[in-house]
Amino acid sequence: MTRYYRLADIIGERIEQGLYQCGQRLPSVRSLSQEHEVSISTVQQAYRVLEQRQLVEPRPKSGYFVSQKHDLPALPAMCRHAQRPVEISQWDLVLNQLQGRAQGVTQHMGMGIPDVTVPSLKPLTKYLSRIALNTDLSSLNYDEISGSLSLREQISRLLVDSGSHISPDGIMVTTGCHEALSIAIHALCQPGDIIAVDSPSFHGVTQILKGFGMKALEIPTDPLTGISLDALSLALEQWPIKAIQLTPNCNNPLGYIMPDAHKQALLTLAQRYDTPIIEDDVYADLAYHYPRPRTIMSFDEDGRVLLCSSFSKTLAPGLRVGWIAPGRYMDQVIHMKYIGTGATATQPQLAVAEFIRRGDYHKHLRAVRTRYQLNRDIMTDWICAYFPKASRVSRPQGGFVLWIEMPERFDSLRLNRQLEGSGIKVAVGPVFSASGKYRNCIRISYARPLTAEVEAAIKHIGKLMQQQMDEFTA
Amino acid sequence: MTRYYRLADIIGERIEQGLYQCGQRLPSVRSLSQEHEVSISTVQQAYRVLEQRQLVEPRPKSGYFVSQKHDLPALPAMCRHAQRPVEISQWDLVLNQLQGRAQGVTQHMGMGIPDVTVPSLKPLTKYLSRIALNTDLSSLNYDEISGSLSLREQISRLLVDSGSHISPDGIMVTTGCHEALSIAIHALCQPGDIIAVDSPSFHGVTQILKGFGMKALEIPTDPLTGISLDALSLALEQWPIKAIQLTPNCNNPLGYIMPDAHKQALLTLAQRYDTPIIEDDVYADLAYHYPRPRTIMSFDEDGRVLLCSSFSKTLAPGLRVGWIAPGRYMDQVIHMKYIGTGATATQPQLAVAEFIRRGDYHKHLRAVRTRYQLNRDIMTDWICAYFPKASRVSRPQGGFVLWIEMPERFDSLRLNRQLEGSGIKVAVGPVFSASGKYRNCIRISYARPLTAEVEAAIKHIGKLMQQQMDEFTA
Repeated sequence: MTRYYRLADIIGERIEQGLYQCGQRLPSVRSLSQEHEVSISTVQQAYRVLEQRQLVEPRPKSGYFVSQKHDLPALPAMCRHAQRPVEISQWDLVLNQLQGRAQGVTQHMGMGIPDVTVPSLKPLTKYLSRIALNTDLSSLNYDEISGSLSLREQISRLLVDSGSHISPDGIMVTTGCHEALSIAIHALCQPGDIIAVDSPSFHGVTQILKGFGMKALEIPTDPLTGISLDALSLALEQWPIKAIQLTPNCNNPLGYIMPDAHKQALLTLAQRYDTPIIEDDVYADLAYHYPRPRTIMSFDEDGRVLLCSSFSKTLAPGLRVGWIAPGRYMDQVIHMKYIGTGATATQPQLAVAEFIRRGDYHKHLRAVRTRYQLNRDIMTDWICAYFPKASRVSRPQGGFVLWIEMPERFDSLRLNRQLEGSGIKVAVGPVFSASGKYRNCIRISYARPLTAEVEAAIKHIGKLMQQQMDEFTA
Repeated sequence: MTRYYRLADIIGERIEQGLYQCGQRLPSVRSLSQEHEVSISTVQQAYRVLEQRQLVEPRPKSGYFVSQKHDLPALPAMCRHAQRPVEISQWDLVLNQLQGRAQGVTQHMGMGIPDVTVPSLKPLTKYLSRIALNTDLSSLNYDEISGSLSLREQISRLLVDSGSHISPDGIMVTTGCHEALSIAIHALCQPGDIIAVDSPSFHGVTQILKGFGMKALEIPTDPLTGISLDALSLALEQWPIKAIQLTPNCNNPLGYIMPDAHKQALLTLAQRYDTPIIEDDVYADLAYHYPRPRTIMSFDEDGRVLLCSSFSKTLAPGLRVGWIAPGRYMDQVIHMKYIGTGATATQPQLAVAEFIRRGDYHKHLRAVRTRYQLNRDIMTDWICAYFPKASRVSRPQGGFVLWIEMPERFDSLRLNRQLEGSGIKVAVGPVFSASGKYRNCIRISYARPLTAEVEAAIKHIGKLMQQQMDEFTA
């Protein structure tokens, strides 16, 4: 991380927080140089980064100004639904979302898939190929049940960035974050148990709860600060909650980063009720600001946080390389790994370990972070331009998905039906709820290069959305 | 499959069945040529194959004789334990078995791991390497939830050999056979349910039952014909059995192939009690006779058999490529796959598909089948020579593991403790039982090249076993 990147992040954050308003003049190069004790050229480079991110505009002879583009759309509202544990439905909808390819969908706008075509990923394919040809052949054998030591060592190093010091022995490799979450839930809870989740939340987790016959208690979640601590506190008082599962960093689908103070407060709550926390960290290395946000686990001193993550969003999902740092629950977690898959495919693990060890991972992260942040702004602009005026849009602090909330009468399932035959599809809101809420919401991904074709698709989606809106006002 | 291989199998089978006794003269080349309507040279080649397999010996000017070596040790006895569902223990022992490497074990004699150094596996590493470098990069993305179509097409073709015609749509790829079994059990049964299993049986399955809070009902199993149908019939009458799980072909650890008539009778039983069958077929392509044995599934007409398999025993376990053909249970199975791992690593799937498509798989099978059969005889001879006289040894019809039963007073756990520090370890009997039976048994693998070092290890094990025996007679 260079100095000017760090400075760009600081100024960028101030703009995002509204400290400098749209069109307002920003501090001069000289004053920033003095304030931050950096050279003039560092400030100039920082401003150039912010220009690329379309956060600032230079005006000849006047300095830098907050970009006019940052007249942002309204944020989605915090849902205030009844707090009661529910059995999970929506499997048909989730399956339908997964089966896009079979339906002739060429532009699946809603999938949580990173861009695997970025050049910074190239070394990974090289390592994969080299390891396959390795003559010692040990990569064809079963790996240790907890995963390849070389990978766990590298993950241990990465964890320092999120504020944790965990030895390789405290980490177990999994078949993607999916298996990590599945193992964590299965290790802690029994059929019939109640698990508190943020809402909206990742459909993988709600379907895991369904598969194990457990119940979800959906906690209202703020689109900027995350799960409502008041609501969670009330829920913990009212119900025998066995675990709290949430995605505090670069949340899917809302994109927020929970403030550190909230993370600490949440941990205190969990301590008071002696409840374990299953923390999904899968998008967190894609936070737009450096250093990446801290995990809840990094504040934890009694091993109650089970941190789940993978390289599916940062590198490539087809590798199926994830991991879990399960705190004090390692014994149960190892058993669940054994009964689920026995071991993780060996060669992808070794390739990822090499990619991190040689510094390619951080290089790659820098490249995609910048790209995704830029894409967020372009996609937000398109949505402002082409979607109905009533659209409310999330403001992600990392990752590559947007959450769009429409007025109640809008039906995202109907939208997908209307899109049939066009090759376009969106992720519908109800899959992000255990009980089928958010029918008026959709998730849009901006990971892929935002070509004219993508813009045309957004325009087409917007037109159909407007038609739905017009029907009701007609 | 050439003519002489087929003929060698026929004669070999007759020898194994005892039709020709040890030291007896075998039919002349001329008479076999007439009987099977093949050329003289085909019969000569067949006899040469049998010579390699150490089944026959040529005697100058007298023709071919059944090898003297075939004075086989006694088979293990059929266990007659109380039939009552049990909760599963033994996790600590299973974990201990898995963690050999960490304990400095260099010769783990009990692991169910194939020889990945055989030259016929070479093309696989080439395909893995090539696919990694493929420019279209789709192999880095999520695969379809049911797995790569190209692989499912090849598996569909392979299934014909076991007597089944199943389209690629009826197959789902999994992270090894382990995940296939886990999914099948989870899809069919609830916590508290009773599942009937062959005994001894694969520890993966019993641990899966433990993980899901289910109970195992161990059915006595004959070392030549498999699960006792009488005992199973009685069990089905007495208990609400939710599923029958067994390994009828090249059983692990006993190595038998269940006769087809037993397979059909078992299916009829399952029909009468409307019980699904979870059939583990993972070693069956390693049957020593060609064509490979039929599955129970191949007799099934109402979709009650869930066939589970993988390439972990035939190719390489580190690939983690398995599959399930779940009959009428596909919907539940897809959901369980989604909640377990979401998808299987893509590149290993594509490489295996290529390996089968190009004919490398069958070529490889021919090579390892011959090798493992030869190794079985060598290892059996060593055991006869170095183990206590009271040892009873299984007579595998395929695969690469031997099951050795000692008198009751022998303790396999104590043997492993005695072996500590020598770098040698065996698989102890109790891990193959839900309730910790078979403490007097061990499993030995003969997949690896049987070097002088392996012989020395067997000798050392035998010495320690004899010491234990002597203590009791002293």
